[in-house]
Amino acid sequence: MAQLTIDGNSRDAAAKLKVDYPWIRTPVVASAPMRLIADIDLTLAVCRAGGIGFLAGGTDVSQMDQQCQKLKEALEPTPIASRVGVQPYGLGFITWGAPLEASVAVIQRHKPAAVWFFAPQKLKDLVDWTQRTRAASPETRIWIQVGTVADAIEATELCQADVLVLQGQDAGGHGYYSAASIVSLVPEVEDRLEAWSKASGKPTPIIFAAGGIMDSRAFAAALTLGAHGIVLGTRLLAANEAIIADGYQEALFAAEDGGTATARSNLYDTLRGTLGWPEAIGGRGVLNRSWEDSKKGMSMEDNKILYDKAMKLGAKGWGFDKQTEGHAYVGKVEDGRMTAYAGTGVGLLKRRQPAAEIVLEVREGVMGKLTRASGAMLP
Amino acid sequence: MAQLTIDGNSRDAAAKLKVDYPWIRTPVVASAPMRLIADIDLTLAVCRAGGIGFLAGGTDVSQMDQQCQKLKEALEPTPIASRVGVQPYGLGFITWGAPLEASVAVIQRHKPAAVWFFAPQKLKDLVDWTQRTRAASPETRIWIQVGTVADAIEATELCQADVLVLQGQDAGGHGYYSAASIVSLVPEVEDRLEAWSKASGKPTPIIFAAGGIMDSRAFAAALTLGAHGIVLGTRLLAANEAIIADGYQEALFAAEDGGTATARSNLYDTLRGTLGWPEAIGGRGVLNRSWEDSKKGMSMEDNKILYDKAMKLGAKGWGFDKQTEGHAYVGKVEDGRMTAYAGTGVGLLKRRQPAAEIVLEVREGVMGKLTRASGAMLP
Repeated sequence: MAQLTIDGNSRDAAAKLKVDYPWIRTPVVASAPMRLIADIDLTLAVCRAGGIGFLAGGTDVSQMDQQCQKLKEALEPTPIASRVGVQPYGLGFITWGAPLEASVAVIQRHKPAAVWFFAPQKLKDLVDWTQRTRAASPETRIWIQVGTVADAIEATELCQADVLVLQGQDAGGHGYYSAASIVSLVPEVEDRLEAWSKASGKPTPIIFAAGGIMDSRAFAAALTLGAHGIVLGTRLLAANEAIIADGYQEALFAAEDGGTATARSNLYDTLRGTLGWPEAIGGRGVLNRSWEDSKKGMSMEDNKILYDKAMKLGAKGWGFDKQTEGHAYVGKVEDGRMTAYAGTGVGLLKRRQPAAEIVLEVREGVMGKLTRASGAMLP
Repeated sequence: MAQLTIDGNSRDAAAKLKVDYPWIRTPVVASAPMRLIADIDLTLAVCRAGGIGFLAGGTDVSQMDQQCQKLKEALEPTPIASRVGVQPYGLGFITWGAPLEASVAVIQRHKPAAVWFFAPQKLKDLVDWTQRTRAASPETRIWIQVGTVADAIEATELCQADVLVLQGQDAGGHGYYSAASIVSLVPEVEDRLEAWSKASGKPTPIIFAAGGIMDSRAFAAALTLGAHGIVLGTRLLAANEAIIADGYQEALFAAEDGGTATARSNLYDTLRGTLGWPEAIGGRGVLNRSWEDSKKGMSMEDNKILYDKAMKLGAKGWGFDKQTEGHAYVGKVEDGRMTAYAGTGVGLLKRRQPAAEIVLEVREGVMGKLTRASGAMLP
């Protein structure tokens, strides 16, 4: 078996990440700033496990000052090694909705190691976001999430993104309807960035891959495709520290065959009354009774009435009942009406775990998966 | 850097493949039996380059006897090492349309090393196909292409498929609308097969991954995900040996940003008058004027009239004109009307090459991509 030799580019990227986020362990895991789900506990647990945790600001940043204050207090007794001048965590913003002024004020006051921008109405809108952020907190690194090659190039040229998060079609929650998976997206972006770098003389951004990555198999795959790190989203919905209803988690554990059990649509945004997402973006979630009824022709008005009723039922709203004996739930995701955003990897989600355990497991399995891949080559 | 040690399962699978297809080189590349495109020359070139080439029978097998006869004649002066009793190539059948009796007769007469079945109306239909094939040519290995975890399990249980081809959403041409990419599909199938094998005591099939795989980056990724080999489809549309119009190839070379430049639909089947595909299946192709017009509300009837006119225009039908000086084409894929089936990896397709060069390039780059992935791990 051939011995692996060091690859210049990927080793350089890892070294650069280690400088920017001194507490990390490699290969690098980041956690997606999932709105309403990725709060203080999940962010801290991921960072303490050597990942880059992102707290979700979402579209409403009115609580972020308080959240950052709590993070600071939680870090005081047992600090995490950070760079001078920044706090050892990231903050995520949904840029079509989050107010620019207030968001920049939070960034200026709390100086996160990184910010993550996603879903502007137009990518050009991020020029303001990045310039204002860099003025307010020069040491804060800027992560921009994109889903196409064109946006990857634009985010690089216009915003000099430090990190591009390349989101593939498999991703849960919000993403572009028209999109490849990371299988072809990451390599095409890599080639285009390389050509751009050669022509411009400028360095290429660090690449994180997102979408369908549930364990060390897909982590290793992302690295061979050309990514320097990965993002966990759906997998962390099973974390003890995620802010997530029991019924939502049960729906995820029950879902199988992720490519057919989920779909990307605007149904759940409409039912929940979440308005404002750019038209090109939909949310991938587990298919359930709301979806079936909608497909059968039920009006959105009637569907919403039933959705609002389901909201009052706890786990039952997702199709699950607590057993009278023991703590287990029984039920079927098909009987649920409530939203359970998840990626195509949902079939691989089986049980609740501490976030730290998830991050370690995913990271530490990578070498073994590269090894097994090499087994496909006979001497 | 850690040294790669041998992985039992993946090494065993490679050894088994080497027994079944003695001419192959590892890691193993197969070529998709692309209807009307993968004919004698492409099949032979792939096999001679150490891959497993599949000649496309499609839905009409009336020419297959003649094609197999030509393959036999071509192999006489410079044979390819095969197993006793079988010819060193594969044959592909589109099982909703190909006549069972006539297909089995071809298999019986020519005894290919492998057959590839895709797209039955119901997966159960393949029980007949596999039983009849095994009776007619016991040494012929049976490959079944599926797009979901459920079908993968069913093809294993009902048909004892020797090889499962797991097709992800990125794939060009025909595939399932509701499908994950190989990023989550391959791992979920692997886990389910492992559980099934443990419960049944039966061995699991060999796994080939298809969909979005253009070069050694995605090849290495497929192996880390759990596949034992890969299928090239779109990448081989650029092969000198593919039966493909110049205009079609130009459209592929021009297309960029494969996730947005292609879509899966039934538009092109309808325009071409190809009827009979199962409803759950659509063809991914490059978006062009036909697509735009259809989206703007043009009737299928009017669109088809324009399509039929475009069919008479040569390369111009795909939006390209031959320059008066030199052999290069100029034009825009957006101006074309003709079908150009391709996967999301189309943005990585840049030039015509001999099939052998493609197979070698893709295969020989794998170790380097595993190496670079390992660079993401700092010591």
